[in-house]
Amino acid sequence: MKKEVRAEIIAIGDELLYGQIQDTNSHWISQELTQIGVRVVRRTTVGDNQEAILSAFALAEKNADIILMTGGLGPTQDDLTKQLLATYFDCTLELVPEALDAVRVFFERRGRELTETNKLQAHLPTKCTYVPNEVGTAPGMWFEEKGCVWMSMPGVPHEMRKLMTDFVLPKLKSLYDLPVIYHQLIRTVGIGESWLSDLIKDWEDALPENVKLAYLPSLGEVKLRLTAFADDMGAASGAVARQLDLLKPMIEKYIYAYGNIPMHEAIGSLLNEKNQKVAFAESCSGGYIAHLVTSVAGASAYFQGGIIPYHNTYKQTLLGVSDDTLSSHGAVSEQTVIEMAKGVREKFQTDYGVASSGIAGPSGGTADKPVGTVWIACSYQGGVDTKLLQLTQDRSINIHLTAISALNLLRTCILRETS
Amino acid sequence: MKKEVRAEIIAIGDELLYGQIQDTNSHWISQELTQIGVRVVRRTTVGDNQEAILSAFALAEKNADIILMTGGLGPTQDDLTKQLLATYFDCTLELVPEALDAVRVFFERRGRELTETNKLQAHLPTKCTYVPNEVGTAPGMWFEEKGCVWMSMPGVPHEMRKLMTDFVLPKLKSLYDLPVIYHQLIRTVGIGESWLSDLIKDWEDALPENVKLAYLPSLGEVKLRLTAFADDMGAASGAVARQLDLLKPMIEKYIYAYGNIPMHEAIGSLLNEKNQKVAFAESCSGGYIAHLVTSVAGASAYFQGGIIPYHNTYKQTLLGVSDDTLSSHGAVSEQTVIEMAKGVREKFQTDYGVASSGIAGPSGGTADKPVGTVWIACSYQGGVDTKLLQLTQDRSINIHLTAISALNLLRTCILRETS
Repeated sequence: MKKEVRAEIIAIGDELLYGQIQDTNSHWISQELTQIGVRVVRRTTVGDNQEAILSAFALAEKNADIILMTGGLGPTQDDLTKQLLATYFDCTLELVPEALDAVRVFFERRGRELTETNKLQAHLPTKCTYVPNEVGTAPGMWFEEKGCVWMSMPGVPHEMRKLMTDFVLPKLKSLYDLPVIYHQLIRTVGIGESWLSDLIKDWEDALPENVKLAYLPSLGEVKLRLTAFADDMGAASGAVARQLDLLKPMIEKYIYAYGNIPMHEAIGSLLNEKNQKVAFAESCSGGYIAHLVTSVAGASAYFQGGIIPYHNTYKQTLLGVSDDTLSSHGAVSEQTVIEMAKGVREKFQTDYGVASSGIAGPSGGTADKPVGTVWIACSYQGGVDTKLLQLTQDRSINIHLTAISALNLLRTCILRETS
Repeated sequence: MKKEVRAEIIAIGDELLYGQIQDTNSHWISQELTQIGVRVVRRTTVGDNQEAILSAFALAEKNADIILMTGGLGPTQDDLTKQLLATYFDCTLELVPEALDAVRVFFERRGRELTETNKLQAHLPTKCTYVPNEVGTAPGMWFEEKGCVWMSMPGVPHEMRKLMTDFVLPKLKSLYDLPVIYHQLIRTVGIGESWLSDLIKDWEDALPENVKLAYLPSLGEVKLRLTAFADDMGAASGAVARQLDLLKPMIEKYIYAYGNIPMHEAIGSLLNEKNQKVAFAESCSGGYIAHLVTSVAGASAYFQGGIIPYHNTYKQTLLGVSDDTLSSHGAVSEQTVIEMAKGVREKFQTDYGVASSGIAGPSGGTADKPVGTVWIACSYQGGVDTKLLQLTQDRSINIHLTAISALNLLRTCILRETS
């Protein structure tokens, strides 16, 4: 058995302790370290306070091999991390020309002048290895001191993630002899966690010792993670593959993707593969479905466009929903959403037209159509599928679940119509 | 000046360190404690591990007056908190009849039999005060030991929140003479952190002892947080108000809201106040602006709808962008985005029409129009404002920044046109 490699995560910032910002960084870092076989043994959050930060360093050093820090790197006076790292490692801050150039380029690209304060960001502890931050102005700093490796990263999530992905994770893999762990994510939609677990209970109970199953439920979907531990990657991935072969037949129709592929990306690949196009008519989802689909690079290959007829007038003028339908059935009805789906499909001359209409809430509900009542439809050459959703009292949850359900309805239509 | 009351929050559970569950509890508790004037000095997350939990207790005891714990209270073997509290306070676990009744009732209500394992949940450290958990089976435990108050709560968020709200927060208010802390958030857009800090440096340096400033930058905006400590709320809010009066004139045009109000919500309030309406024509932002605006309850009062002409054809057919404009200037041009903004404003008969067209990336860039080149426009009765953005290589960041910039362009137009 290999020696366990232990990591601590330190998040720095008063705004975290005041509860003004949710620390999503430590959670994300925990996931990434776990993925590569590093054991996270503690996470600590401290404020912008010298004593607290220094004692966090000292505690971490006693407890872990790897210490990852986020936050406290801004150019302003309340940010202390960089200075305290210099103090802790008994060195000074010096200008790193490379870092200065990077900051200058960053601002030039934005047509802005470099200020004195900006320049301070290029002064780094002499004992650190400068790690360029391509998407921000605060550099990453890597130390190998006091028998540990230390990495200081900005608290801005996308900057931290890029530094982790491009530099830290590969570097840790090369530095340590990490246990071989193979993960396979299986993404399901349209079935709840407990039903899923009932469905696969016997299989789960029969899993071999070195293969573990985790349920990762999130809004509107449940991910299953199979993790195998072995001496080499071939054995680990093989062990997972064997279990997957047994699992698939039981839940095939709920599986929309494997690995790190969200629903809207899976839909894109499916449309690309079938060489088909889609358009959206979004009332209650208000553009969220189009946003999800266009967040994927290359979406223009299959997404033609969308219409958001938020006010009913435009369900008629832009999508051709009939006066009669709206007056007799209302905007939140199967008939209306069918005409919206057909309308947008014609307008954009696509293979599929997907529509949503519902009461997102928190107000606007009635006795027969309470908040959370949502109709979705998918129109295609051969006809139209519809679905009635009874969702929650929460507006943002309803918008999110409407999008996932509409995309899943589209997915099932594509698979059926092209099979 | 009152004595500062310090708190530590300890979250317990392997699932947190493995990143399987995001710890939302510590964040929520931080907010609640800050609200009542308790200073959160550290948050620690440890696994289901005896040594780690006991050392977390010892560290917290040295550092804080109040120690709040969540998690590790399940009936299963891997949950250690209760046993370790007994160990730490040198007492034993004994059956608390009251607690047993509560667990029995909990299961009866759900028509389930009480198992031996369930019964274990009624065994509590003899030195604790039993705090009933009305929404779950793991009781709360309150200790006043070793010069601190300690509260252990289940990790299930709604159970923890009920115990905090019904018992812990009132209890702390009655136990301590808490200082008054007043926070004021000032939200700015259109200026970077370092420019802002240069602009207000003299004011910042002259802040009185009891007023602190923090910069909270996030993608596309910078929040300033003023925090005042005083003996009563009047003095605290007054101290902040005095500083705000000095600050405002320096940065007025960048301030879009105060407090917990995101840009898209501020825009909504502004439109409501002016009784005006808006529509969006989104190419590169792909529906994200409409999504942000419709994520606010009541958006239908000022948001009429939107068009997402992702394929150029529909910039012509749906928005009336001229053939000539597209062929001579291209889709990503000032002329095109002007015609899009005018077109969508006419289509939806609104006071304002806002449009975006750009190269979100990662591909599609050219020498004269690299990835991150985005044109935005806002059309209104009197004319049209436009802006050229030079953004990043990252698609999602470009989409986000396009939305914030477009909404800020709309904001400035509204303020000017209605002044």
